[in-house]
Amino acid sequence: MAFIYINGNFFEDVSAKISVKDRSFRFGDGVFETISFDNGKISHWNLHKKRLEDGLAAIKIEFNAENLENNILKTIERNKLSSGSARINITRGEGSRGYLPTYQKPCNVGIEVMDKLIMEKTSANLCVSSYRKIPLECLPVNFKLSQGLNSSLAKMEAREKGFFEALQLNIKNEIAECYSGNIFWTKGDKIYTPSLECDVLNGVIRQVILQKSSYKIIEGKFELEHLKDADEIFITNTIWKVLAVDSIENIWKSSGKNKISQELFRLVDTH
Amino acid sequence: MAFIYINGNFFEDVSAKISVKDRSFRFGDGVFETISFDNGKISHWNLHKKRLEDGLAAIKIEFNAENLENNILKTIERNKLSSGSARINITRGEGSRGYLPTYQKPCNVGIEVMDKLIMEKTSANLCVSSYRKIPLECLPVNFKLSQGLNSSLAKMEAREKGFFEALQLNIKNEIAECYSGNIFWTKGDKIYTPSLECDVLNGVIRQVILQKSSYKIIEGKFELEHLKDADEIFITNTIWKVLAVDSIENIWKSSGKNKISQELFRLVDTH
Repeated sequence: MAFIYINGNFFEDVSAKISVKDRSFRFGDGVFETISFDNGKISHWNLHKKRLEDGLAAIKIEFNAENLENNILKTIERNKLSSGSARINITRGEGSRGYLPTYQKPCNVGIEVMDKLIMEKTSANLCVSSYRKIPLECLPVNFKLSQGLNSSLAKMEAREKGFFEALQLNIKNEIAECYSGNIFWTKGDKIYTPSLECDVLNGVIRQVILQKSSYKIIEGKFELEHLKDADEIFITNTIWKVLAVDSIENIWKSSGKNKISQELFRLVDTH
Repeated sequence: MAFIYINGNFFEDVSAKISVKDRSFRFGDGVFETISFDNGKISHWNLHKKRLEDGLAAIKIEFNAENLENNILKTIERNKLSSGSARINITRGEGSRGYLPTYQKPCNVGIEVMDKLIMEKTSANLCVSSYRKIPLECLPVNFKLSQGLNSSLAKMEAREKGFFEALQLNIKNEIAECYSGNIFWTKGDKIYTPSLECDVLNGVIRQVILQKSSYKIIEGKFELEHLKDADEIFITNTIWKVLAVDSIENIWKSSGKNKISQELFRLVDTH
């Protein structure tokens, strides 16, 4: 039986409920974070907290995140876990049936934890999604908004077609990211990744690699063509850290060498 | 005390709750409809039902909507209302912490009703939103997806700037719609409105006007420039029906004549 944190209290799994007037239930009006923890310590908490705070500000939700780490740790403890992941959900609160949040209610805060997943994949095959990434002109998509339908549709489509992940382009035909991870590729000793202006998530592992790697990393705007002569391609997120790509449909196929991605996996794992 | 319908049962307002594992709470993964009813009869139910079913199919949610009208009518009766509006929320159900809905749970269905609003406005001033409409290449936005953050941000911005509504362009600089209504304008005896390809909602009042009006209506792709010599501009939704526009920033100002919009208001009201 798992215990879920809601607004300062713990509830057993089946009784963890929220008002139907919550704005995230109505509209996906909130932000979330997925974090991982090892031996009771949250990985890269400062980066997650910063992104969460910036995301809340971008959608004009007032929330003080100072106690959040402590509440996550309490939830981990309450569930007697040592290593695993957590999902933190912060919504605009309750009320206002229409789009306008007409009165400021306190945010609803939910924290769920789960035991460490055994990652079933050591590499991923990718398709190119028919769903384009939502542009920054529409939503501040550099943050983890609770607007997950675009990613969900891309993921359903990929799995129906037999692919583990999907590469999504933005509406300018630029490479953006996968639905659940940022993308990087290498040519010689250079690493490439789409810039944040390409409508991609400001991923925490992406940030760690940009800050800590000794490789020259070029952030820019690239079309699919740029991948064709890549040496290695890999995708990153909080759960997998760094996952090598096997193939992208008939656009690219791995030579089997994953030297740089394995190096970065170790780098991320130790930071 | 209002009663809210959830999955076949009625709950008092404060105890109307849903699992935090609901996918709409997590991701806005669902669709909704706002309907109006007069003297216990739902206006344009067939059009709402069709859009709801098409929206559910577009995001791959299986749901049988045959009993929905009856359940809305029961909710209206339970709340002893005769005229008002209702919000119907249908989500993908519970489970799957990640983007992929890994197992098919029954949908969660919520119905809330409220008494008829006294519309405080007889006309609206509009700004041009800094938030662009989400493109169809990203999401099937012709339907009322529970992804309301774009509209909420546009509405907050408009109200902060002192405007009642905001006109949103799509990312191609074409006129799309307002955050809570479709837009129409007239030149002589011709009426213009953006086509569904302009990333706009397939609005029920929009459909009624297209089907029932005796005017020639041109659906197309238009830039802001096209509005400058409009005679009348008006916006439509299920609650207001047809609302005249006073001004759009310094782009357009009403001459005060709202002949066609008033005619269409009466047309919609009697259908």
